[in-house]
Amino acid sequence: MQGQNQQQAYDRGITIFSPDGRLYQVEYAREAVKRGTASIGIRTSDGVVLAVDKRIRSPLMERSSVEKIHKADDHIGIASAGHVADARQLIDFARRQAQVNQLRYGEPVGVETLTKEITDYIQQYTQVGGARPFGVALIIAGIANGEPRLYETDPSGTPYEWKALAVGADRGEIRDYLEANYDEEMDLDAGVDLALAALASVNDGGLSPEGIGIAVIDVETEQFRELSDEEKESHLVEADLLASEDDAADEPDEDEE
Amino acid sequence: MQGQNQQQAYDRGITIFSPDGRLYQVEYAREAVKRGTASIGIRTSDGVVLAVDKRIRSPLMERSSVEKIHKADDHIGIASAGHVADARQLIDFARRQAQVNQLRYGEPVGVETLTKEITDYIQQYTQVGGARPFGVALIIAGIANGEPRLYETDPSGTPYEWKALAVGADRGEIRDYLEANYDEEMDLDAGVDLALAALASVNDGGLSPEGIGIAVIDVETEQFRELSDEEKESHLVEADLLASEDDAADEPDEDEE
Amino acid sequence: MQGQNQQQAYDRGITIFSPDGRLYQVEYAREAVKRGTASIGIRTSDGVVLAVDKRIRSPLMERSSVEKIHKADDHIGIASAGHVADARQLIDFARRQAQVNQLRYGEPVGVETLTKEITDYIQQYTQVGGARPFGVALIIAGIANGEPRLYETDPSGTPYEWKALAVGADRGEIRDYLEANYDEEMDLDAGVDLALAALASVNDGGLSPEGIGIAVIDVETEQFRELSDEEKESHLVEADLLASEDDAADEPDEDEE
Amino acid sequence: MQGQNQQQAYDRGITIFSPDGRLYQVEYAREAVKRGTASIGIRTSDGVVLAVDKRIRSPLMERSSVEKIHKADDHIGIASAGHVADARQLIDFARRQAQVNQLRYGEPVGVETLTKEITDYIQQYTQVGGARPFGVALIIAGIANGEPRLYETDPSGTPYEWKALAVGADRGEIRDYLEANYDEEMDLDAGVDLALAALASVNDGGLSPEGIGIAVIDVETEQFRELSDEEKESHLVEADLLASEDDAADEPDEDEE
Amino acid sequence: MQGQNQQQAYDRGITIFSPDGRLYQVEYAREAVKRGTASIGIRTSDGVVLAVDKRIRSPLMERSSVEKIHKADDHIGIASAGHVADARQLIDFARRQAQVNQLRYGEPVGVETLTKEITDYIQQYTQVGGARPFGVALIIAGIANGEPRLYETDPSGTPYEWKALAVGADRGEIRDYLEANYDEEMDLDAGVDLALAALASVNDGGLSPEGIGIAVIDVETEQFRELSDEEKESHLVEADLLASEDDAADEPDEDEE
Amino acid sequence: MQGQNQQQAYDRGITIFSPDGRLYQVEYAREAVKRGTASIGIRTSDGVVLAVDKRIRSPLMERSSVEKIHKADDHIGIASAGHVADARQLIDFARRQAQVNQLRYGEPVGVETLTKEITDYIQQYTQVGGARPFGVALIIAGIANGEPRLYETDPSGTPYEWKALAVGADRGEIRDYLEANYDEEMDLDAGVDLALAALASVNDGGLSPEGIGIAVIDVETEQFRELSDEEKESHLVEADLLASEDDAADEPDEDEE
Amino acid sequence: MQGQNQQQAYDRGITIFSPDGRLYQVEYAREAVKRGTASIGIRTSDGVVLAVDKRIRSPLMERSSVEKIHKADDHIGIASAGHVADARQLIDFARRQAQVNQLRYGEPVGVETLTKEITDYIQQYTQVGGARPFGVALIIAGIANGEPRLYETDPSGTPYEWKALAVGADRGEIRDYLEANYDEEMDLDAGVDLALAALASVNDGGLSPEGIGIAVIDVETEQFRELSDEEKESHLVEADLLASEDDAADEPDEDEE
Repeated sequence: MQGQNQQQAYDRGITIFSPDGRLYQVEYAREAVKRGTASIGIRTSDGVVLAVDKRIRSPLMERSSVEKIHKADDHIGIASAGHVADARQLIDFARRQAQVNQLRYGEPVGVETLTKEITDYIQQYTQVGGARPFGVALIIAGIANGEPRLYETDPSGTPYEWKALAVGADRGEIRDYLEANYDEEMDLDAGVDLALAALASVNDGGLSPEGIGIAVIDVETEQFRELSDEEKESHLVEADLLASEDDAADEPDEDEE
Repeated sequence: MQGQNQQQAYDRGITIFSPDGRLYQVEYAREAVKRGTASIGIRTSDGVVLAVDKRIRSPLMERSSVEKIHKADDHIGIASAGHVADARQLIDFARRQAQVNQLRYGEPVGVETLTKEITDYIQQYTQVGGARPFGVALIIAGIANGEPRLYETDPSGTPYEWKALAVGADRGEIRDYLEANYDEEMDLDAGVDLALAALASVNDGGLSPEGIGIAVIDVETEQFRELSDEEKESHLVEADLLASEDDAADEPDEDEE
Repeated sequence: MQGQNQQQAYDRGITIFSPDGRLYQVEYAREAVKRGTASIGIRTSDGVVLAVDKRIRSPLMERSSVEKIHKADDHIGIASAGHVADARQLIDFARRQAQVNQLRYGEPVGVETLTKEITDYIQQYTQVGGARPFGVALIIAGIANGEPRLYETDPSGTPYEWKALAVGADRGEIRDYLEANYDEEMDLDAGVDLALAALASVNDGGLSPEGIGIAVIDVETEQFRELSDEEKESHLVEADLLASEDDAADEPDEDEE
Repeated sequence: MQGQNQQQAYDRGITIFSPDGRLYQVEYAREAVKRGTASIGIRTSDGVVLAVDKRIRSPLMERSSVEKIHKADDHIGIASAGHVADARQLIDFARRQAQVNQLRYGEPVGVETLTKEITDYIQQYTQVGGARPFGVALIIAGIANGEPRLYETDPSGTPYEWKALAVGADRGEIRDYLEANYDEEMDLDAGVDLALAALASVNDGGLSPEGIGIAVIDVETEQFRELSDEEKESHLVEADLLASEDDAADEPDEDEE
Repeated sequence: MQGQNQQQAYDRGITIFSPDGRLYQVEYAREAVKRGTASIGIRTSDGVVLAVDKRIRSPLMERSSVEKIHKADDHIGIASAGHVADARQLIDFARRQAQVNQLRYGEPVGVETLTKEITDYIQQYTQVGGARPFGVALIIAGIANGEPRLYETDPSGTPYEWKALAVGADRGEIRDYLEANYDEEMDLDAGVDLALAALASVNDGGLSPEGIGIAVIDVETEQFRELSDEEKESHLVEADLLASEDDAADEPDEDEE
Repeated sequence: MQGQNQQQAYDRGITIFSPDGRLYQVEYAREAVKRGTASIGIRTSDGVVLAVDKRIRSPLMERSSVEKIHKADDHIGIASAGHVADARQLIDFARRQAQVNQLRYGEPVGVETLTKEITDYIQQYTQVGGARPFGVALIIAGIANGEPRLYETDPSGTPYEWKALAVGADRGEIRDYLEANYDEEMDLDAGVDLALAALASVNDGGLSPEGIGIAVIDVETEQFRELSDEEKESHLVEADLLASEDDAADEPDEDEE
Repeated sequence: MQGQNQQQAYDRGITIFSPDGRLYQVEYAREAVKRGTASIGIRTSDGVVLAVDKRIRSPLMERSSVEKIHKADDHIGIASAGHVADARQLIDFARRQAQVNQLRYGEPVGVETLTKEITDYIQQYTQVGGARPFGVALIIAGIANGEPRLYETDPSGTPYEWKALAVGADRGEIRDYLEANYDEEMDLDAGVDLALAALASVNDGGLSPEGIGIAVIDVETEQFRELSDEEKESHLVEADLLASEDDAADEPDEDEE
């Protein structure tokens, strides 16, 4: 009870510190991220992979409208987890920044540069009053100077670079899987397989090509590319992860909305 | 009791996160949507259908003043459910955006483009202080590049694309009906019939032509068109959904106001 | 007790949603409307009628200063119920909009156009912080394109068109009377009689010419005109609704203030 | 207890509606008016009378500094009751509006026009946040088009026209007296007598010339004029209302401050 | 208890009305005035007197830095009681207004004019949010048109004119003394004696020249002048009010700070 | 308990009056001053002395970074006690004001002038919302017109002039010591000795040269000068106040931070 | 319980004083600093050392993205502890100020100057409403005029200069270690060894080269330089602080996020 009451005191008005130095609104925003279905990012020797769970609540919903993978620039893709409408704002911000960079410096924006512009933007919403934090985490993947790069932004506005990571629901379990199976030397194809296997590790009954989204950016073309359903199915078949018809239509948590 | 108190803490001031990552003001706005009578959208092979329950509280009220179907542009219609005065603001916004697009680019606004401009506008009201979220959901239907498109906006500012959907009262039951009976190959006429049947599925005693509103946009003309009472009656008779005189005057929930 | 406490939580600061999707400040504003004496509007085949209860608290008060019927433009009248000072703001707004329309388009403002400009204005006060909603309902009556039109605005900012309606105290009873006795074919004179009868239905002891206000706008002249005491008395006598001297001086609820 | 708690909930922050549709801050401002000593206005056939109770708390205070009767323009006087400092703001506003009208239209401001400009100004303080309502009521008396006019403004911002009225302490008793004794045909002199008698009706022991203020504006000169002590005494003697020396120095409620 | 709780409800945020029509923040500001040592003003036939209690908390403090008598203009002096830092703001405001008046109209500001400019300024701090009222009362003394004038401003922003008055600690007792002993015909010298006697009436053990401040403005020179310690001592000796050495160093209430 | 609750009510939001006329936020800011180590100012016949306790929390901290004595201008020094970061803001303000004065009038700013500019600045933070008061007291010492002057500013924004004073921890005890031992005729050297003795009176075990700071401004040079460790040691030895090695490293209260 | 409740009262809205003169929001921000892993700064005879604990939560995270040592200018480095996103804002501010100084004065910014610009910026967030304090402490190290300098900024905005210090987790223990082992005469190499030993003193099982970050700035080159993993390993081996493989991967507290 005591803890309960104490917590409530820090939820009102602006984002402020609790006696133990936490920013509850930021931590609650992290809970909003966990309510979203999982997204995964993997860096390989010749490119980066983004993989997302895009199951839908109803067969009548268009899967293409579940926006979890976004192209930020030719050479940068972003996967999101959490509050969808918030994610859209950050993606818009990212695209504008990428364009501004191109106009101002005549060259594509760096992946790290873009990540930090986004996190600085997020941080403002955790310190200045009159607005709430963003309830979304992003995985920012791209090629910079010929090297694959993979970043995370969280609701506090902290940037992290990863070899492989997951955000959203089941983040912990997927991370365990990635830590156990990641190999820095693998190529892009193996990266896609690992992403699918990690996603399958928290989904009983396998995956359907339509229920997932995959995007890759290889160091050669430096072009963001989403995999077709055929490509995804081929990967799933090969890895024996293809769901049977019955399991494929399972709905995610209603809260994703 | 505990839950009750906790909830209250997140209702004051601006829209903020609860400990489990929810935005209560947004969820309460969804309740406002449920208080409104149902609206339905159906995408068919040759056009889109909007159907709304527009029963009235008194025989003295002019049915035409129950604004639930709106023409946003020649090729785009919008059905709403929830807080009527809020819906008007979003419709006005949508019409202005459609005009701006026409002026700026010399061509009609895309259905998806318009939907996302609206959802981004809605999102602002869920993050920045000093205002409450919009208590309304919209179904945005139109033709883009010769293809029928059907979108939903909810109070969180998330855009979804659907083959067929319902918003407002009895949303769940109508969705079940649609999922069981929807066929992607059907034509516009069959779509109107399905919409009426879905609406009738939650109304004992059938429907009256005046108590419902139907609009269609076909891929050929790309023109928003509302069905006349005669057309509606003919559909109802054909489907044996016409209400007897006694049942027709039933009033919706007073809260619709 | 629980309900009581819960309600209080939504009364502070700005207008926000309650867990069941209501806007309490708007509902309380509707209570303010009910505290005002009744106003009635009736649409007939050849014009519109506005009738108001304008009893006064003291014989020393000038009845003419009880502002319940207002001329918004030559062809549009407005009756109000509720918070008098708030009504004045909306009437001022309506008059300015009518003038602006005349100046900008060189023709009188439409009744529906004016109504919606007013409701959009009202809606702002229910969504944006820093002010309370308007505690007043308006009946807007006028002629547009040779047709009589009759609208209502409520504190939520929703516009409704009616054949006949009442706002303010005893709204329910008067509506029942109107529903039972309204005939779309009646002429303006019969409309005045119906309005008086409806008003009398909730006033024991009849009406006095001075205690009521009547205005009409006929489709021929399209001119707002208030009835003289003689005209009102003649109507009352004819309908046997004239109060005896003793009953005439009854005061309305002090809260009307 | 319940009622007590409930009331408190509506006192904080801005002026908002209570569940029964009241604006408590406005009602409390009315209480502030009742804390002030009484002011009276009377309209006669050939002019208007303002009469105020201006007893003082100490014989050392200058009676002339008890500002309860104010000249707003040559032809308009204002009597106030309630919070003195608030009254000063409204009087200043009234004087500026009178000058603006003279400058803009080349003629004296109408009494009704000025009254409504004041009430609209008052209303703003009851709807928009960041300030409290004015704790004062005004009696505005003047000549317009050769006719005597008499208005009241209250803290809600509602204008009323009266034949005779009282504001401030003992308002109810004085009104009863006025209702019983007012005659529309009386002349200005009789009006002064009635005002004094009404004031005396709530003051045991009679009145002193210094303890009251009287101003008149007659239709002929249209000039605001305050009566001298001699004139007041002559009226009091004639009406047998003159207080004995002992009674004259009684102090009003300290709260008038 | 009930009263206690109720009161607290009106202390937060901005200055608002309590259910009985009081402005608690203004009343609490009056308490701040009472916490200050007394100041006295006396109007005589040939000038005005200001007298203040300026005892100090420590013999190491410079008496000259206890600012209780201020020169606002050549012909106007101001004595204050209450919150010292607040008084400084009002004195600065008064001096600026006096200069502005001189520049704009080429003549010294009137005492009443200056007083009312100050009270209007004070009133704003009691009605508009975002600041607290001034915790100080002023006695404004000066010569206007050859006549001595004496005014008071209180925290509500109300101006009063007095023949003689006291503000600050022991206000009531000193007023009683002044009422009993004031004579409108006395000259400036007698006025000084009365002020000292009034001050002594609430100080056991007499007064020291250093512990008090005296300023006079006579109608002839119209020049503000502070009395020297010799002059003060001579007055005290003459009136047998001079304190013995032991009593002189008594400290006022620490709260004066 | 009652008192406890009551107090809390005045701590929130802006600085407002309590029922007994206090400004709690200002009084709490005074507590912040008391949490700081002591600072002393002494005016002598030929100059002013500032002495501060600058013990440090760790031998690894640089004593020079404990900012308690500041040079505001060539002829003015300031010692502070309380919240260090707040003090820096006021010192910056003081320096800017000194420069502005030099630029505008071509002469050094007066000590009293500068003090009052600072206190007026402090006062704003106690009356206008949106910020808290300054948690610091300053001793402002300097030469004006060849005379030594010594002032204090406190968190309420009140200026005081002193012969000798202390602010910060143990203020009361040090003042008692100063009152008992101050002699207006002493010279600067004796002033330094008195300051050291006063400081030692509340420090068992004597003082170390490094643990204290001393600055003087003499009337001849009018130059602010800080004493070297040698000078300080020489004074301490002479007065037999030099601490033994063991006692010198004692840390002040951690709260000074 | 009492203490608990009392504390809560000071957590809401803006940063204000508690009855005992504390600023709780600032103290809570200090707790946020303690949640971060430790950072150490050491000043030696020929340069300054910054050492940070940069252990990571997962082997998949890129250590280089744990930003705890930052280059602010060629000659100035900054180590941080606490809220990472907040640190980024202050580092950005520091870099801008360094550039501005270079542009404006044509020379590198002084270490003390830069520190105080940062602390003044921090202080604003503790006094003015609408934002929370920064939850981060910085160690600012650099060369000024050929001398090594070492500063700390804390969440209150107070600058301190140190010979050696630690911020973040285990601050107390590390300070004890530094106090016991610091020698002002040691050279840069010995400084690095001391920093490592201090860090190891609170880490059972030794350190890994990758788990720590070391930067030095020597007085000769005045160039910020980060040590390579080889250099760090060589130091660790020499000091017998190298962790065995098993211990190296230990994760810091999850809250660091």
